Amino acid sequence: MSRDEERVKRVQHVLEEQHWDALVCTLPQNVLLLSGYWPVVGTSIAIAMRSGHIAVIAPEDEYDLAVQGWADELRTFAGGSLHNLDTLDRNVRVPLAQIVEKHGLHGRVVAYENSADVQPASYAAMNVYGSSIVQLLQDEIHGARLVSGSGALARLRATLTAHEASCVRAACLQAECAFRAGARALRAGLRETEVAAAFQERLSDTEGRAGGFAYCMSGPNAAEACAAYQRSRSRQLMPGDFALVHCNSYIDGFWTDITRTFSIGEPDARKCGMYAAVLEASRAAIDAVRPGVKAAEVDRAAREVLQRRGFGKEFKHATGHGVGFAAINHLAQPCIHPVSDDVLEPGMTFNIEPAIYCDGYGGLRHCDVVTVTSGGVEVLTPFQAGVSELTIGK
Amino acid sequence: MSRDEERVKRVQHVLEEQHWDALVCTLPQNVLLLSGYWPVVGTSIAIAMRSGHIAVIAPEDEYDLAVQGWADELRTFAGGSLHNLDTLDRNVRVPLAQIVEKHGLHGRVVAYENSADVQPASYAAMNVYGSSIVQLLQDEIHGARLVSGSGALARLRATLTAHEASCVRAACLQAECAFRAGARALRAGLRETEVAAAFQERLSDTEGRAGGFAYCMSGPNAAEACAAYQRSRSRQLMPGDFALVHCNSYIDGFWTDITRTFSIGEPDARKCGMYAAVLEASRAAIDAVRPGVKAAEVDRAAREVLQRRGFGKEFKHATGHGVGFAAINHLAQPCIHPVSDDVLEPGMTFNIEPAIYCDGYGGLRHCDVVTVTSGGVEVLTPFQAGVSELTIGK
Repeated sequence: MSRDEERVKRVQHVLEEQHWDALVCTLPQNVLLLSGYWPVVGTSIAIAMRSGHIAVIAPEDEYDLAVQGWADELRTFAGGSLHNLDTLDRNVRVPLAQIVEKHGLHGRVVAYENSADVQPASYAAMNVYGSSIVQLLQDEIHGARLVSGSGALARLRATLTAHEASCVRAACLQAECAFRAGARALRAGLRETEVAAAFQERLSDTEGRAGGFAYCMSGPNAAEACAAYQRSRSRQLMPGDFALVHCNSYIDGFWTDITRTFSIGEPDARKCGMYAAVLEASRAAIDAVRPGVKAAEVDRAAREVLQRRGFGKEFKHATGHGVGFAAINHLAQPCIHPVSDDVLEPGMTFNIEPAIYCDGYGGLRHCDVVTVTSGGVEVLTPFQAGVSELTIGK
Repeated sequence: MSRDEERVKRVQHVLEEQHWDALVCTLPQNVLLLSGYWPVVGTSIAIAMRSGHIAVIAPEDEYDLAVQGWADELRTFAGGSLHNLDTLDRNVRVPLAQIVEKHGLHGRVVAYENSADVQPASYAAMNVYGSSIVQLLQDEIHGARLVSGSGALARLRATLTAHEASCVRAACLQAECAFRAGARALRAGLRETEVAAAFQERLSDTEGRAGGFAYCMSGPNAAEACAAYQRSRSRQLMPGDFALVHCNSYIDGFWTDITRTFSIGEPDARKCGMYAAVLEASRAAIDAVRPGVKAAEVDRAAREVLQRRGFGKEFKHATGHGVGFAAINHLAQPCIHPVSDDVLEPGMTFNIEPAIYCDGYGGLRHCDVVTVTSGGVEVLTPFQAGVSELTIGK
């Protein structure tokens, strides 16, 4: 990938502003942010210097991926060997020490990821450095002053560059293909797990490292979609059900967060009322998005509609959160939440997910991804936006 | 789940032996090990006391899952709220402090996960505490002496109890259904991503929290399956190809690691030779498995066959690694590796994955999951074991 100069500049600006000499990252989302390289197994390390220089340490097996980023300096380590059973901790020390020496980082101010964070997971297993990173940095950067980089990283991830937003746009387009194919396969009698598979299978059907997760919650189960996690079960879809389909997909490290709720057969009056309320709330929130607006105002726009229509208590969560580097993370900035202090600016990319959850009955959520433009808002997921398209088997 | 007394006893034995007063875990695999509860989003904490008492801190949204484990004490925290944007770090402190007070942990020896580790990932996003766990423990357990628990945890995960092995057996049976369905769908013309989807879709089609990942590498791409990560691409399968299908699936927190290599059409003489070598190496390794045998001997059994048949250099990795709590982790014990010191004992569960990778031509890997019994070995994945079953479109 060609160097994202805007991203490099923003990262460098933070280092200058904070008087950090280096910023060290191991979470794949942050390695991607700093270097344009999206690690697979989570063992890579990216280091941004105040000069703008970016160094990456990657396992040999990911060299072909790492070299597609814009690191100025790329060093590899052996992931495994038939001659020894060396641990990761041991293998990364040599290239780390070389970078530290070359750039004179001993005794300097080094920021690192010191907070809990939510990392999207694309692969079957993920290395996490955990607290070992502190020992590693203390051992290899003599006299370093280690400081927290987590807050600044979260803010950097909140506003996408033009290149990064285009990556999310591509992922949303692929998700649209998957949702259209999934909707064609939807019918009463399928199990939730089968529905999820029908939506999920197209997510990887494109160039790039693409894939993702789909979940289906139907009938009364859809009321549980308000929880912090989504889950498909073996319940069979029945005529008259809501079938809520949640999807987190990715292309090359950039994630989506999309939900559509389908009616299996014509919706009755109650369901029509829920659709009308949620889709109006969605429009109200989207209409409120523009640079300079408080994120809390966007939440209020959606919430007021649902309250006016009698669903205030059934809208149990915030209206949205940052999406792109994040998939599901309700604290990803900007937080479209009643008490959020975030103020929208161009490039901020997030979901808008008004919903109604009625315990024992069902749930309806409509979740779009939008990005703030200089003039207002762009909806990256404009498909299946009306009741007609969301009704299956008319 | 009923309490796994054998597991509780083994954990307690480690605390006694190491003179630890408590062992604190946040990685989902270790929370499962200690409490029988498999967290979804990764925010939960399990604490084993030397008395055998197990405490769990879980988000409210996972209460219904946490209560299915065997924790003696279960405390929850709010994951999110419309009234504040509190961080996880803040939310878990109250229940943690209550447990610390109740059990008098101030000033005691507390082991925790201090090493990098590989965590299987079942969900779209995973919370990782990272180095924040150290600050959390230092703040809430006054005067605690924090020591490394990672080595002992890795050893505990290496040997499954009868209950845990039965969970892996169930996951392997479900994977068998998926492999049989996938093989029926296999044909020339499909893209690797489509093949992967065909194998993957059945993995969630059972009771319990089930799912997983499948990857297909075909033709010359199959030679790259020796890398530390697997990947499906858009390449179309052609007559005469090898199609290597790798799968990591799970049920309720216990994972599989299975590979079958199919021949699209009758294999030619070169491919027949590769099949004969890999399947003989597999049998030799399996035949070597019994309690008291060194893991390195099992590796040698497979390697000698491949060397004798002229494929020594093309077998580029170790013969296997621990599976169950782990999915893909070449350091998961027992390491079936030339320099491993591990000695097999009943309950150890691992893969046996002899392979031949020929750059530019293709690759063949046959990966089974086996468990050590008191009398020898049980193969948990005895399906598609011969060339006839692995040949598509005869």
